[in-house]
Amino acid sequence: MVVEYVGTEFKGWQRQAGSISVQQVLEDSLCKISKQTTVVVYGAGRTDAGVHATGQVAHFDLDTAMDANKLLCSLNHFLLPHAITVLELTECSPNFDARFDAKMRYYIYRIINRHTRLSLDAGRAWGVRKPLDIKLMEQAASYFLGHHDFSSFRAASCQAASPLRTISDIRLITLVNQEIQLHISARSFLHHMVRNIVGTLVAVGKKQIPPTRIPEIIQAKDRKKAGITAPACGLYFIKVDY
Amino acid sequence: MVVEYVGTEFKGWQRQAGSISVQQVLEDSLCKISKQTTVVVYGAGRTDAGVHATGQVAHFDLDTAMDANKLLCSLNHFLLPHAITVLELTECSPNFDARFDAKMRYYIYRIINRHTRLSLDAGRAWGVRKPLDIKLMEQAASYFLGHHDFSSFRAASCQAASPLRTISDIRLITLVNQEIQLHISARSFLHHMVRNIVGTLVAVGKKQIPPTRIPEIIQAKDRKKAGITAPACGLYFIKVDY
Repeated sequence: MVVEYVGTEFKGWQRQAGSISVQQVLEDSLCKISKQTTVVVYGAGRTDAGVHATGQVAHFDLDTAMDANKLLCSLNHFLLPHAITVLELTECSPNFDARFDAKMRYYIYRIINRHTRLSLDAGRAWGVRKPLDIKLMEQAASYFLGHHDFSSFRAASCQAASPLRTISDIRLITLVNQEIQLHISARSFLHHMVRNIVGTLVAVGKKQIPPTRIPEIIQAKDRKKAGITAPACGLYFIKVDY
Repeated sequence: MVVEYVGTEFKGWQRQAGSISVQQVLEDSLCKISKQTTVVVYGAGRTDAGVHATGQVAHFDLDTAMDANKLLCSLNHFLLPHAITVLELTECSPNFDARFDAKMRYYIYRIINRHTRLSLDAGRAWGVRKPLDIKLMEQAASYFLGHHDFSSFRAASCQAASPLRTISDIRLITLVNQEIQLHISARSFLHHMVRNIVGTLVAVGKKQIPPTRIPEIIQAKDRKKAGITAPACGLYFIKVDY
Protein backbone atom coordinates (compact mmCIF):
# COMPACT_ATOMS: atom_id res chain seq x y z
CA MET A 1 0.00 0.00 0.00
CA VAL A 2 0.97 3.63 -0.60
CA VAL A 3 0.27 5.79 2.45
CA GLU A 4 -0.08 9.54 3.08
CA TYR A 5 0.05 10.96 6.61
CA VAL A 6 0.52 14.12 8.63
CA GLY A 7 3.46 13.36 10.91
CA THR A 8 2.47 15.94 13.54
CA GLU A 9 0.10 13.73 15.52
CA PHE A 10 2.34 10.62 15.60
CA LYS A 11 5.46 9.55 17.47
CA GLY A 12 6.76 8.49 14.05
CA TRP A 13 6.11 5.48 11.85
CA GLN A 14 7.32 2.75 14.20
CA ARG A 15 5.12 1.13 16.83
CA GLN A 16 6.28 1.88 20.37
CA ALA A 17 4.73 1.41 23.80
CA GLY A 18 2.87 4.37 25.28
CA SER A 19 2.60 6.54 22.19
CA ILE A 20 0.68 6.60 18.97
CA SER A 21 2.43 5.65 15.73
CA VAL A 22 1.36 5.35 12.09
CA GLN A 23 2.25 1.64 12.08
CA GLN A 24 0.09 0.98 15.13
CA VAL A 25 -2.96 2.82 13.74
CA LEU A 26 -2.65 0.90 10.44
CA GLU A 27 -2.18 -2.43 12.26
CA ASP A 28 -5.10 -1.83 14.63
CA SER A 29 -7.38 -0.90 11.72
CA LEU A 30 -6.34 -4.00 9.76
CA CYS A 31 -7.00 -6.19 12.82
CA LYS A 32 -10.52 -4.78 13.14
CA ILE A 33 -11.28 -5.38 9.46
CA SER A 34 -9.68 -8.84 9.16
CA LYS A 35 -10.72 -9.98 12.67
CA GLN A 36 -7.15 -11.26 13.10
CA THR A 37 -5.56 -10.71 16.51
CA THR A 38 -2.28 -9.57 14.92
CA VAL A 39 -1.35 -7.93 11.62
CA VAL A 40 2.17 -6.60 11.20
CA VAL A 41 2.69 -3.72 8.75
CA TYR A 42 6.22 -3.31 7.36
CA GLY A 43 7.10 0.17 6.06
CA ALA A 44 9.75 1.20 3.54
CA GLY A 45 10.94 3.98 5.83
CA ARG A 46 10.68 4.41 9.58
CA THR A 47 9.93 8.14 9.57
CA ASP A 48 10.53 10.06 12.81
CA ALA A 49 7.94 11.91 14.90
CA GLY A 50 6.64 14.92 12.96
CA VAL A 51 7.87 13.72 9.55
CA HIS A 52 5.14 13.61 6.88
CA ALA A 53 4.58 11.17 4.03
CA THR A 54 2.86 11.46 0.68
CA GLY A 55 4.18 8.13 -0.62
CA GLN A 56 5.26 5.82 2.20
CA VAL A 57 5.04 2.18 1.01
CA ALA A 58 4.20 -0.74 3.31
CA HIS A 59 3.26 -4.39 3.07
CA PHE A 60 1.37 -6.83 5.31
CA ASP A 61 0.00 -10.37 5.19
CA LEU A 62 -3.59 -11.44 5.87
CA ASP A 63 -4.69 -14.98 6.69
CA THR A 64 -7.68 -14.74 4.34
CA ALA A 65 -7.73 -13.16 0.88
CA MET A 66 -9.69 -9.88 0.59
CA ASP A 67 -10.64 -7.75 -2.39
CA ALA A 68 -8.04 -4.97 -2.60
CA ASN A 69 -10.52 -2.21 -3.51
CA LYS A 70 -12.93 -3.11 -0.71
CA LEU A 71 -10.04 -3.33 1.74
CA LEU A 72 -8.79 0.13 0.65
CA CYS A 73 -12.22 1.66 1.31
CA SER A 74 -12.77 0.04 4.71
CA LEU A 75 -9.20 0.74 5.78
CA ASN A 76 -9.60 4.47 5.04
CA HIS A 77 -12.86 4.38 6.99
CA PHE A 78 -11.31 2.68 10.05
CA LEU A 79 -8.28 5.02 9.97
CA LEU A 80 -10.52 7.98 10.83
CA PRO A 81 -10.12 10.36 12.64
CA HIS A 82 -6.37 9.97 12.12
CA ALA A 83 -4.67 11.99 9.38
CA ILE A 84 -3.63 8.86 7.49
CA THR A 85 -4.90 7.97 4.00
CA VAL A 86 -4.13 4.75 2.13
CA LEU A 87 -3.81 6.08 -1.43
CA GLU A 88 -3.31 2.73 -3.19
CA LEU A 89 -3.56 -0.89 -2.18
CA THR A 90 -2.70 -3.84 -4.39
CA GLU A 91 -2.07 -7.54 -3.90
CA CYS A 92 1.64 -8.29 -4.22
CA SER A 93 3.87 -11.33 -4.52
CA PRO A 94 4.25 -13.22 -1.18
CA ASN A 95 7.99 -12.47 -1.41
CA PHE A 96 7.61 -8.69 -1.72
CA ASP A 97 9.21 -6.75 1.12
CA ALA A 98 8.44 -3.00 1.28
CA ARG A 99 11.62 -2.31 3.25
CA PHE A 100 14.26 -4.62 1.82
CA ASP A 101 13.16 -4.55 -1.83
CA ALA A 102 13.26 -0.74 -2.04
CA LYS A 103 15.65 0.38 -4.81
CA MET A 104 15.28 4.13 -4.28
CA ARG A 105 13.77 6.37 -1.59
CA TYR A 106 12.77 9.99 -2.33
CA TYR A 107 12.44 12.77 0.24
CA ILE A 108 11.60 16.47 0.00
CA TYR A 109 12.55 18.97 2.70
CA ARG A 110 10.59 22.27 2.75
CA ILE A 111 12.13 25.52 4.05
CA ILE A 112 10.25 28.84 4.12
CA ASN A 113 12.86 31.58 4.25
CA ARG A 114 11.23 34.70 5.69
CA HIS A 115 11.65 36.87 8.77
CA THR A 116 8.13 36.24 10.15
CA ARG A 117 6.82 33.05 11.78
CA LEU A 118 4.79 30.58 9.71
CA SER A 119 1.00 30.38 9.92
CA LEU A 120 -0.20 28.42 6.87
CA ASP A 121 2.92 26.23 6.88
CA ALA A 122 3.37 25.90 10.65
CA GLY A 123 4.24 22.24 11.28
CA ARG A 124 4.58 21.71 7.52
CA ALA A 125 7.92 23.43 6.80
CA TRP A 126 10.98 24.83 8.58
CA GLY A 127 10.72 28.61 8.93
CA VAL A 128 14.25 30.00 8.61
CA ARG A 129 14.27 33.71 9.45
CA LYS A 130 17.79 34.71 8.36
CA PRO A 131 18.16 35.20 4.58
CA LEU A 132 19.72 32.16 2.89
CA ASP A 133 22.18 32.36 -0.01
CA ILE A 134 20.78 29.74 -2.36
CA LYS A 135 23.86 29.74 -4.64
CA LEU A 136 26.13 28.77 -1.73
CA MET A 137 23.65 26.08 -0.68
CA GLU A 138 23.57 24.64 -4.23
CA GLN A 139 27.36 24.50 -4.30
CA ALA A 140 27.42 22.77 -0.90
CA ALA A 141 24.70 20.28 -1.91
CA SER A 142 26.71 19.10 -4.93
CA TYR A 143 29.43 17.63 -2.64
CA PHE A 144 26.95 15.18 -1.09
CA LEU A 145 26.20 13.49 -4.40
CA GLY A 146 27.56 9.94 -4.77
CA HIS A 147 29.02 7.32 -2.43
CA HIS A 148 30.36 8.57 0.92
CA ASP A 149 30.82 7.65 4.56
CA PHE A 150 28.02 9.73 6.14
CA SER A 151 29.14 9.32 9.78
CA SER A 152 29.14 13.14 10.16
CA PHE A 153 25.42 13.17 9.24
CA ARG A 154 24.27 10.17 11.27
CA ALA A 155 22.27 10.25 14.51
CA ALA A 156 23.92 8.67 17.58
CA SER A 157 20.90 6.35 17.74
CA CYS A 158 21.41 5.08 14.14
CA GLN A 159 21.40 1.28 14.03
CA ALA A 160 22.66 0.76 10.46
CA ALA A 161 25.59 -1.66 10.11
CA SER A 162 27.50 0.66 7.75
CA PRO A 163 27.72 4.47 7.49
CA LEU A 164 28.26 4.20 3.70
CA ARG A 165 25.42 5.49 1.56
CA THR A 166 25.00 6.63 -2.06
CA ILE A 167 23.06 9.81 -2.81
CA SER A 168 21.69 9.44 -6.33
CA ASP A 169 20.20 12.90 -6.65
CA ILE A 170 20.26 16.10 -4.57
CA ARG A 171 18.72 19.34 -5.84
CA LEU A 172 17.55 22.65 -4.42
CA ILE A 173 14.42 24.20 -5.90
CA THR A 174 13.13 27.71 -5.22
CA LEU A 175 9.38 28.35 -5.31
CA VAL A 176 6.93 31.20 -4.73
CA ASN A 177 6.48 32.65 -1.22
CA GLN A 178 10.15 32.28 -0.26
CA GLU A 179 10.02 28.48 -0.31
CA ILE A 180 13.20 26.46 -0.84
CA GLN A 181 12.88 22.69 -1.31
CA LEU A 182 15.62 20.09 -1.09
CA HIS A 183 14.86 17.04 -3.26
CA ILE A 184 17.05 14.09 -2.32
CA SER A 185 17.08 10.40 -3.22
CA ALA A 186 19.14 7.35 -2.25
CA ARG A 187 18.61 3.62 -2.02
CA SER A 188 18.63 4.09 1.75
CA PHE A 189 19.46 6.75 4.33
CA LEU A 190 20.99 6.71 7.81
CA HIS A 191 18.93 7.90 10.80
CA HIS A 192 18.47 11.72 10.63
CA MET A 193 20.70 11.84 7.52
CA VAL A 194 18.42 14.09 5.43
CA ARG A 195 17.69 16.43 8.35
CA ASN A 196 21.41 16.65 9.23
CA ILE A 197 22.28 17.46 5.61
CA VAL A 198 19.54 20.15 5.57
CA GLY A 199 20.79 21.63 8.87
CA THR A 200 24.29 21.83 7.35
CA LEU A 201 23.03 23.37 4.08
CA VAL A 202 21.14 26.02 6.06
CA ALA A 203 24.35 26.84 7.98
CA VAL A 204 26.02 27.27 4.56
CA GLY A 205 23.12 29.48 3.38
CA LYS A 206 23.59 31.66 6.48
CA LYS A 207 27.34 31.89 5.66
CA GLN A 208 28.30 30.13 8.88
CA ILE A 209 30.04 27.33 6.94
CA PRO A 210 31.72 27.91 3.54
CA PRO A 211 30.45 25.41 0.93
CA THR A 212 34.01 24.27 0.15
CA ARG A 213 34.27 22.89 3.70
CA ILE A 214 31.66 20.18 3.00
CA PRO A 215 34.19 17.56 1.70
CA GLU A 216 36.25 18.11 4.87
CA ILE A 217 33.14 17.72 7.08
CA ILE A 218 32.26 14.46 5.30
CA GLN A 219 35.84 13.19 5.65
CA ALA A 220 35.94 14.03 9.39
CA LYS A 221 33.32 11.28 10.06
CA ASP A 222 32.38 13.29 13.12
CA ARG A 223 28.78 14.36 13.81
CA LYS A 224 30.01 17.45 15.70
CA LYS A 225 31.58 18.93 12.52
CA ALA A 226 28.27 19.17 10.63
CA GLY A 227 25.29 21.46 11.21
CA ILE A 228 22.25 20.98 13.42
CA THR A 229 19.46 18.48 12.78
CA ALA A 230 16.75 20.34 10.85
CA PRO A 231 13.25 20.10 12.41
CA ALA A 232 11.19 17.03 11.52
CA CYS A 233 8.17 19.07 10.34
CA GLY A 234 9.85 20.11 7.06
CA LEU A 235 10.51 16.54 5.90
CA TYR A 236 8.26 14.58 3.50
CA PHE A 237 8.77 10.95 2.46
CA ILE A 238 7.43 11.11 -1.07
CA LYS A 239 8.20 7.99 -3.10
CA VAL A 240 9.81 4.55 -3.19
CA ASP A 241 11.02 2.72 -6.30
CA TYR A 242 11.15 -1.08 -6.44
CA MET B 1 -0.13 45.48 6.13
CA VAL B 2 0.01 42.17 4.22
CA VAL B 3 -1.51 39.33 6.23
CA GLU B 4 -1.37 35.52 6.05
CA TYR B 5 -3.87 33.37 7.95
CA VAL B 6 -5.34 29.90 8.20
CA GLY B 7 -9.08 30.42 7.72
CA THR B 8 -10.05 27.23 9.56
CA GLU B 9 -10.08 28.68 13.06
CA PHE B 10 -11.97 31.89 12.19
CA LYS B 11 -15.57 32.83 11.38
CA GLY B 12 -14.08 34.75 8.46
CA TRP B 13 -12.34 38.10 8.18
CA GLN B 14 -15.13 40.34 9.44
CA ARG B 15 -15.70 41.10 13.13
CA GLN B 16 -19.00 39.68 14.41
CA ALA B 17 -20.48 39.21 17.85
CA GLY B 18 -20.00 35.82 19.51
CA SER B 19 -17.35 34.38 17.19
CA ILE B 20 -13.68 34.87 16.50
CA SER B 21 -12.62 36.70 13.32
CA VAL B 22 -9.29 37.71 11.81
CA GLN B 23 -10.26 41.39 11.99
CA GLN B 24 -11.06 41.12 15.70
CA VAL B 25 -7.79 39.36 16.58
CA LEU B 26 -5.81 42.00 14.65
CA GLU B 27 -7.77 44.87 16.26
CA ASP B 28 -7.43 43.45 19.78
CA SER B 29 -3.68 42.98 19.32
CA LEU B 30 -3.28 46.53 17.98
CA CYS B 31 -5.27 47.90 20.95
CA LYS B 32 -2.97 46.09 23.40
CA ILE B 33 0.15 47.45 21.68
CA SER B 34 -1.06 51.01 21.10
CA LYS B 35 -2.99 51.24 24.40
CA GLN B 36 -5.86 52.73 22.38
CA THR B 37 -9.37 51.58 23.31
CA THR B 38 -10.33 51.16 19.64
CA VAL B 39 -8.39 50.42 16.47
CA VAL B 40 -10.37 49.56 13.33
CA VAL B 41 -8.66 47.37 10.72
CA TYR B 42 -10.03 47.64 7.15
CA GLY B 43 -9.33 44.65 4.90
CA ALA B 44 -9.21 44.49 1.09
CA GLY B 45 -11.40 41.37 1.09
CA ARG B 46 -13.93 40.11 3.63
CA THR B 47 -13.02 36.42 3.32
CA ASP B 48 -15.58 33.88 4.57
CA ALA B 49 -15.16 31.36 7.39
CA GLY B 50 -12.57 28.75 6.39
CA VAL B 51 -11.05 30.80 3.55
CA HIS B 52 -7.27 31.24 3.82
CA ALA B 53 -5.06 34.19 2.91
CA THR B 54 -1.42 34.49 1.93
CA GLY B 55 -1.72 38.13 0.88
CA GLN B 56 -4.73 39.87 2.44
CA VAL B 57 -4.08 43.63 2.65
CA ALA B 58 -5.46 45.85 5.40
CA HIS B 59 -5.00 49.35 6.77
CA PHE B 60 -5.58 51.03 10.15
CA ASP B 61 -4.91 54.35 11.86
CA LEU B 62 -3.05 54.88 15.14
CA ASP B 63 -3.25 58.00 17.27
CA THR B 64 0.51 58.01 17.84
CA ALA B 65 3.20 57.24 15.25
CA MET B 66 5.07 53.96 15.77
CA ASP B 67 8.10 52.46 14.04
CA ALA B 68 6.74 50.05 11.39
CA ASN B 69 9.37 47.34 11.97
CA LYS B 70 8.90 47.35 15.74
CA LEU B 71 5.13 47.29 15.31
CA LEU B 72 5.41 44.33 12.91
CA CYS B 73 7.41 42.36 15.49
CA SER B 74 5.17 43.11 18.46
CA LEU B 75 2.03 42.54 16.41
CA ASN B 76 3.20 39.05 15.38
CA HIS B 77 3.99 38.37 19.01
CA PHE B 78 0.56 39.50 20.27
CA LEU B 79 -1.23 37.54 17.51
CA LEU B 80 -0.02 34.25 19.00
CA PRO B 81 -1.38 31.60 19.36
CA HIS B 82 -3.59 32.46 16.39
CA ALA B 83 -2.56 31.28 12.92
CA ILE B 84 -2.20 34.85 11.64
CA THR B 85 1.09 36.38 10.50
CA VAL B 86 1.61 39.97 9.45
CA LEU B 87 4.10 39.52 6.60
CA GLU B 88 4.72 43.19 5.84
CA LEU B 89 3.80 46.45 7.50
CA THR B 90 4.53 49.90 6.11
CA GLU B 91 3.38 53.44 6.80
CA CYS B 92 1.00 54.61 4.08
CA SER B 93 -0.60 57.84 2.96
CA PRO B 94 -3.46 58.94 5.28
CA ASN B 95 -5.77 58.64 2.25
CA PHE B 96 -4.91 55.01 1.47
CA ASP B 97 -7.87 52.65 1.72
CA ALA B 98 -7.10 48.92 1.53
CA ARG B 99 -10.62 48.12 0.35
CA PHE B 100 -11.62 50.94 -1.98
CA ASP B 101 -8.20 51.59 -3.57
CA ALA B 102 -7.74 47.95 -4.63
CA LYS B 103 -7.26 47.73 -8.42
CA MET B 104 -7.03 43.94 -8.66
CA ARG B 105 -7.72 41.02 -6.32
CA TYR B 106 -6.15 37.58 -6.89
CA TYR B 107 -7.51 34.28 -5.60
CA ILE B 108 -6.40 30.66 -5.98
CA TYR B 109 -8.75 27.72 -5.47
CA ARG B 110 -7.12 24.32 -4.77
CA ILE B 111 -8.79 21.04 -5.76
CA ILE B 112 -7.23 17.62 -5.11
CA ASN B 113 -8.83 15.19 -7.54
CA ARG B 114 -8.46 11.69 -6.10
CA HIS B 115 -10.76 8.92 -4.91
CA THR B 116 -9.44 8.87 -1.32
CA ARG B 117 -10.05 11.47 1.41
CA LEU B 118 -7.41 14.13 2.08
CA SER B 119 -5.01 13.91 5.03
CA LEU B 120 -2.17 16.37 4.37
CA ASP B 121 -4.51 18.80 2.60
CA ALA B 122 -7.58 18.32 4.80
CA GLY B 123 -8.99 21.82 5.39
CA ARG B 124 -6.54 23.19 2.82
CA ALA B 125 -8.12 22.02 -0.46
CA TRP B 126 -11.37 20.56 -1.84
CA GLY B 127 -11.07 16.81 -2.26
CA VAL B 128 -13.10 15.88 -5.36
CA ARG B 129 -13.36 12.10 -5.65
CA LYS B 130 -14.85 11.72 -9.14
CA PRO B 131 -12.31 12.13 -11.99
CA LEU B 132 -12.44 15.61 -13.53
CA ASP B 133 -12.02 16.30 -17.25
CA ILE B 134 -9.63 19.24 -17.18
CA LYS B 135 -10.06 20.05 -20.89
CA LEU B 136 -13.81 20.57 -20.43
CA MET B 137 -13.16 22.70 -17.34
CA GLU B 138 -10.67 24.87 -19.27
CA GLN B 139 -13.21 25.42 -22.03
CA ALA B 140 -15.89 26.33 -19.48
CA ALA B 141 -13.55 28.71 -17.61
CA SER B 142 -12.87 30.72 -20.76
CA TYR B 143 -16.53 31.87 -20.90
CA PHE B 144 -16.21 33.67 -17.54
CA LEU B 145 -13.45 35.99 -18.78
CA GLY B 146 -14.48 39.64 -19.21
CA HIS B 147 -17.42 41.78 -18.16
CA HIS B 148 -20.65 39.96 -17.22
CA ASP B 149 -23.69 40.07 -14.97
CA PHE B 150 -22.72 37.43 -12.39
CA SER B 151 -26.15 37.10 -10.73
CA SER B 152 -26.04 33.32 -11.35
CA PHE B 153 -22.86 33.13 -9.27
CA ARG B 154 -23.83 35.47 -6.43
CA ALA B 155 -24.82 34.47 -2.89
CA ALA B 156 -28.32 35.48 -1.74
CA SER B 157 -26.59 37.38 1.09
CA CYS B 158 -24.48 39.49 -1.34
CA GLN B 159 -24.77 43.19 -0.54
CA ALA B 160 -23.09 44.61 -3.67
CA ALA B 161 -25.08 47.33 -5.47
CA SER B 162 -24.42 45.82 -8.90
CA PRO B 163 -24.01 42.20 -10.11
CA LEU B 164 -21.68 43.36 -12.90
CA ARG B 165 -18.05 42.31 -12.52
CA THR B 166 -15.02 41.97 -14.83
CA ILE B 167 -12.85 38.88 -14.64
CA SER B 168 -9.39 39.90 -15.84
CA ASP B 169 -7.80 36.47 -15.74
CA ILE B 170 -9.03 32.91 -15.17
CA ARG B 171 -6.74 29.91 -15.59
CA LEU B 172 -6.63 26.26 -14.57
CA ILE B 173 -3.27 24.79 -13.62
CA THR B 174 -2.53 21.10 -13.02
CA LEU B 175 0.13 20.15 -10.50
CA VAL B 176 1.67 17.00 -8.98
CA ASN B 177 -0.42 14.76 -6.69
CA GLN B 178 -3.66 15.26 -8.66
CA GLU B 179 -3.90 18.94 -7.74
CA ILE B 180 -5.89 21.33 -9.94
CA GLN B 181 -5.70 25.06 -9.17
CA LEU B 182 -7.98 27.81 -10.43
CA HIS B 183 -6.21 31.17 -10.60
CA ILE B 184 -8.66 34.03 -10.91
CA SER B 185 -8.41 37.81 -10.68
CA ALA B 186 -10.81 40.74 -10.87
CA ARG B 187 -10.98 44.25 -9.49
CA SER B 188 -13.68 42.95 -7.15
CA PHE B 189 -15.86 39.89 -6.68
CA LEU B 190 -19.42 39.29 -5.52
CA HIS B 191 -20.07 37.27 -2.36
CA HIS B 192 -19.28 33.54 -2.99
CA MET B 193 -18.53 34.35 -6.64
CA VAL B 194 -15.22 32.43 -6.86
CA ARG B 195 -16.62 29.44 -4.95
CA ASN B 196 -19.76 29.38 -7.14
CA ILE B 197 -17.64 29.50 -10.31
CA VAL B 198 -15.48 26.64 -8.95
CA GLY B 199 -18.58 24.57 -8.06
CA THR B 200 -19.83 25.06 -11.61
CA LEU B 201 -16.46 24.19 -13.17
CA VAL B 202 -16.33 20.98 -11.11
CA ALA B 203 -19.83 20.07 -12.39
CA VAL B 204 -18.45 20.59 -15.92
CA GLY B 205 -15.40 18.44 -15.09
CA LYS B 206 -17.74 15.66 -13.89
CA LYS B 207 -19.67 15.99 -17.19
CA GLN B 208 -22.85 17.06 -15.40
CA ILE B 209 -22.91 20.39 -17.31
CA PRO B 210 -21.52 20.75 -20.87
CA PRO B 211 -19.03 23.64 -21.08
CA THR B 212 -21.00 25.25 -23.91
CA ARG B 213 -23.88 25.82 -21.48
CA ILE B 214 -21.87 28.36 -19.43
CA PRO B 215 -22.91 31.44 -21.52
CA GLU B 216 -26.56 30.40 -21.08
CA ILE B 217 -26.09 29.97 -17.29
CA ILE B 218 -24.52 33.43 -17.08
CA GLN B 219 -27.36 34.94 -19.17
CA ALA B 220 -30.02 33.30 -16.99
CA LYS B 221 -29.01 35.54 -14.03
CA ASP B 222 -30.38 32.81 -11.81
CA ARG B 223 -28.32 31.28 -8.99
CA LYS B 224 -30.22 27.97 -9.35
CA LYS B 225 -28.85 27.42 -12.89
CA ALA B 226 -25.19 27.29 -11.78
CA GLY B 227 -23.34 24.64 -9.75
CA ILE B 228 -22.92 24.31 -6.00
CA THR B 229 -20.82 26.62 -3.83
CA ALA B 230 -17.39 24.98 -3.54
CA PRO B 231 -16.17 24.51 0.07
CA ALA B 232 -14.40 27.50 1.68
CA CYS B 233 -11.31 25.48 2.63
CA GLY B 234 -9.95 25.38 -0.95
CA LEU B 235 -9.93 29.16 -1.37
CA TYR B 236 -6.85 31.37 -0.86
CA PHE B 237 -6.79 35.18 -1.09
CA ILE B 238 -3.31 35.67 -2.44
CA LYS B 239 -2.67 39.23 -3.62
CA VAL B 240 -4.05 42.75 -4.08
CA ASP B 241 -2.80 45.33 -6.56
CA TYR B 242 -3.16 49.07 -5.89
